[in-house]
Amino acid sequence: MSDFFVSKLAVIGVGLIGGSFALALKEAGLVGEVVGVGRGRANLETAREKGVVDAYTHSLAEGVTGADVVFLATPVRTLAQVTAELVPHLKSGAVLTDGGSVKGSVIDAIEPLLPADIHFVPGHPVAGTEQSGAAAAFASLYRGRRCILTPTPRTDARAFELVKHLWQAAGSEVVVMTPEKHDRVLAGISHLPHMVAYALVDAVANCGDENENILNYSAGGFRDFTRIASSDPTMWRDIALSNRAALLEVIDTFEKSLSTVKRDIADGNGEALFDFFLKAKQRRDAIV
Amino acid sequence: MSDFFVSKLAVIGVGLIGGSFALALKEAGLVGEVVGVGRGRANLETAREKGVVDAYTHSLAEGVTGADVVFLATPVRTLAQVTAELVPHLKSGAVLTDGGSVKGSVIDAIEPLLPADIHFVPGHPVAGTEQSGAAAAFASLYRGRRCILTPTPRTDARAFELVKHLWQAAGSEVVVMTPEKHDRVLAGISHLPHMVAYALVDAVANCGDENENILNYSAGGFRDFTRIASSDPTMWRDIALSNRAALLEVIDTFEKSLSTVKRDIADGNGEALFDFFLKAKQRRDAIV
Repeated sequence: MSDFFVSKLAVIGVGLIGGSFALALKEAGLVGEVVGVGRGRANLETAREKGVVDAYTHSLAEGVTGADVVFLATPVRTLAQVTAELVPHLKSGAVLTDGGSVKGSVIDAIEPLLPADIHFVPGHPVAGTEQSGAAAAFASLYRGRRCILTPTPRTDARAFELVKHLWQAAGSEVVVMTPEKHDRVLAGISHLPHMVAYALVDAVANCGDENENILNYSAGGFRDFTRIASSDPTMWRDIALSNRAALLEVIDTFEKSLSTVKRDIADGNGEALFDFFLKAKQRRDAIV
Repeated sequence: MSDFFVSKLAVIGVGLIGGSFALALKEAGLVGEVVGVGRGRANLETAREKGVVDAYTHSLAEGVTGADVVFLATPVRTLAQVTAELVPHLKSGAVLTDGGSVKGSVIDAIEPLLPADIHFVPGHPVAGTEQSGAAAAFASLYRGRRCILTPTPRTDARAFELVKHLWQAAGSEVVVMTPEKHDRVLAGISHLPHMVAYALVDAVANCGDENENILNYSAGGFRDFTRIASSDPTMWRDIALSNRAALLEVIDTFEKSLSTVKRDIADGNGEALFDFFLKAKQRRDAIV
């Protein structure tokens, strides 16, 4: 049996993220019992029927009692509250980890809640689909994707190795960076594009005359480009507020880039526009 | 034989747009001879081998001589110059139409060049793929797509009906609007998103530290969202400069929308952010 075997895994929030983690670890043979904790009974029942969890409960206290590893997979703004509620029920040496898409503010809120014998390993699996809920969970969600772990000075080395091993077993490439860098990177490649997509749909809807909705003319390109504006408003409100500083900074940077384009259009500076577009195209093509 | 039969069609610029128009009309049995005019010999040879054109020439004069209909499918910034060169060689009653993605400035440049017996019908087939060149042309490109025609006070009614019929025969839904409205609509649903995508890639590339390229972390979502930043820089420079006024206006509107989001993030106004994101999501979902 592996050094990293988890006798009892508690998954708090049995949706796409939490459920797929449980399924992946089951498939890898790395967990004994999986207990799901959540509110919605129908979703939890689905999770049990699909074999995502072996048992479920609405009680955080009951769910985490005796757990070796607790995976927090509820929305990012709820993580601190959930942690505060479950901490008194953790056994000594338990490892707590999360899947929140913001790290700095989550760490700041969670670490002060933890006694010295509870080990928190902050993480963020960069994966997801348009779907949600236990019904959408599948064992290979994390295969070939990155999982970013952001240890802090307080992070226990053995707990870190365990969590790293679990994500690797789930098929992910584990990338380690500081929480600050994580939040800056995600602000750029994920949070900013969502803000821009929402703002773009708003702007285009607002720029027609009273009696025309310009959106009615949108073709495939616009639909593709704004697909992420169909994302869950609650989740994106929470992320925007949880990663406020990094996001405001990257919005500033974006505003400067766009104002460069705007100035060159106003000036009729075709050479500058061509250079700007070409450089962006080359950078974009380089990441494909 | 249809009232709308075109004995000789001249296609200026035998790429995806011009070539597909020729193929669609051939398939519909609406054209006799198709002559392609262009610069690149290899591309024109491909066009002849594929049956896109029956003959080709590098000479505008030769190509348009005797043509009933001339389709201008060269880049938008070249249309006026091309028109100036070919007009002296058109037969009386010839119909000139174009596929330019900007209409106001194109009309302003072309109409003054035309004698009264040459009939110009400004158009814009809203279709395209990532591919270009005659090799990429196919008869069904326009099927199920919109073609916007923007007649002016000078547009001849019979020429308009002919061009409308040709696009319908190519499978398109013909939509008629003023050039001003066309340019406002396209600025919103197409030109603005391209400017935003280029600026977004630029901003994200610029917001890392010296030694890190944040773009290296980009996942599927970012790649999808910025796909249009891989578009041809020359084409987009030309469109940006040709639709300057409408584009600057819609960039202003977008900047206001984004600054609303930014202010609400800075203020920690979760309720306002939620409402903004929800409204955008609903508008986006309504166009799918």
